[in-house]
Amino acid sequence: MSPTAARAAFRAGLRVPTSGYSAGWTQANLIALPRDYAYDFLLFAQRNPKSCPVLDVTEPGETSASIFGGDLRTDLPAYRVYRDGELAEDVGDVTGLWRDDLVSFLVGCSFTFEAALLEAGVPVRHIETGGNVPMYRTNRDCRPAGRMSGPLVVSMRPVPASMVATAVRITSRYPAVHGAPVHIGEPADLGISDIDSPDFGEPVEIRPGEIPVFWACGVTPQAAVMHSRPPFAIGHAPGHMVITDARDSEFLVP
Amino acid sequence: MSPTAARAAFRAGLRVPTSGYSAGWTQANLIALPRDYAYDFLLFAQRNPKSCPVLDVTEPGETSASIFGGDLRTDLPAYRVYRDGELAEDVGDVTGLWRDDLVSFLVGCSFTFEAALLEAGVPVRHIETGGNVPMYRTNRDCRPAGRMSGPLVVSMRPVPASMVATAVRITSRYPAVHGAPVHIGEPADLGISDIDSPDFGEPVEIRPGEIPVFWACGVTPQAAVMHSRPPFAIGHAPGHMVITDARDSEFLVP
Repeated sequence: MSPTAARAAFRAGLRVPTSGYSAGWTQANLIALPRDYAYDFLLFAQRNPKSCPVLDVTEPGETSASIFGGDLRTDLPAYRVYRDGELAEDVGDVTGLWRDDLVSFLVGCSFTFEAALLEAGVPVRHIETGGNVPMYRTNRDCRPAGRMSGPLVVSMRPVPASMVATAVRITSRYPAVHGAPVHIGEPADLGISDIDSPDFGEPVEIRPGEIPVFWACGVTPQAAVMHSRPPFAIGHAPGHMVITDARDSEFLVP
Repeated sequence: MSPTAARAAFRAGLRVPTSGYSAGWTQANLIALPRDYAYDFLLFAQRNPKSCPVLDVTEPGETSASIFGGDLRTDLPAYRVYRDGELAEDVGDVTGLWRDDLVSFLVGCSFTFEAALLEAGVPVRHIETGGNVPMYRTNRDCRPAGRMSGPLVVSMRPVPASMVATAVRITSRYPAVHGAPVHIGEPADLGISDIDSPDFGEPVEIRPGEIPVFWACGVTPQAAVMHSRPPFAIGHAPGHMVITDARDSEFLVP
């Protein structure tokens, strides 16, 4: 499905995780913040490039972006709206909530390298099951910037022990979309006490002989919003991404 | 020479281009701007990552940085001070000119990959001759951001035709310090009418069988200052870099 067709389906009301959608086209995380917070967030992203690789930034109030020809208010499957850091609404359209001072940041998403993992024979469990990737708030703090601070969020994919090195090698070639894993095995080291109860997304089965592999996740900006409590923010619903008009191959380091 | 020793020498008054200094330690471009311009510049850098790869950003007024344990006011060999976009002073110390609202950006420098080029047998002419690298203002515009706009600046190294591919391959592994060349051969295409008259640095000989190879250059922020005319800015003198405490290998993509 082309990005245009996928976005039209979401605009029409389809509400599903986007992993596996529009293969070859880059998916992105959304965080839209008031202009007054834009420098703090852009600096937060610069200081935390593994979790917050910025792919594009709009002008205040703008509803499309240079890598995204759709409408940021309607063309995602689902949104989360925050007021003073509290999740206020979980909706399929934010047209009525949009503001002229909102600067939208499109942040790289690990879904970008999943096609490359599959091609190399590395299984991706949440694609096999048609569910959402499990994501966890960790005990690692991001480097703060101005008024923005918060914990690192990670996504997890179980990888057969014999293929962990392959998964590292392949994803390290995509530094703009989280790159190599931040942690391999030992969930407790990240402060994850129950791997079957992710903070976002859905749990996946870890089979015998598989290692949980953790990548920095673009939900980190939303965790920073919850921690830092700016007056207003809009994000995508975790796993329900912005489908852009950029090609995955643009983010591949040769 | 260690970064600490090199910085002490510059603080004591040594005024030389830093190419080849403190081998293995990362060198950086400096641009310090009033806090009011910090978002526009950080966004300009995000939109022009080949020429403006940001390695570190200070808090307003801060004189050191997370990757730089020295004093930004004294520990560079030479500085350029701009008022309303005009070059106002060319000095060895900016202590008396420092302001509490200055945000300093350390931007990646192509000197970082020169050791890797030499190791692969690619000659680097300005190191052989002990001079400064030639740099040119091009006819290519950077993507503007807010009040910041200006032309792309490039550095040039002549490379034997048989080694151009090697030079591309090696430097593409350093995306955080300008990465692969932006242009190979045909200086006129970049609007460079006289290759022997660089806008910054010193000319180098291009020998028969050598191709001029152009990399995006961290003097681009200073060209943007000249073009955009913020009230005040401090940069390094081109080729006279910030020697940081980071290792070149940190910026190598495996």
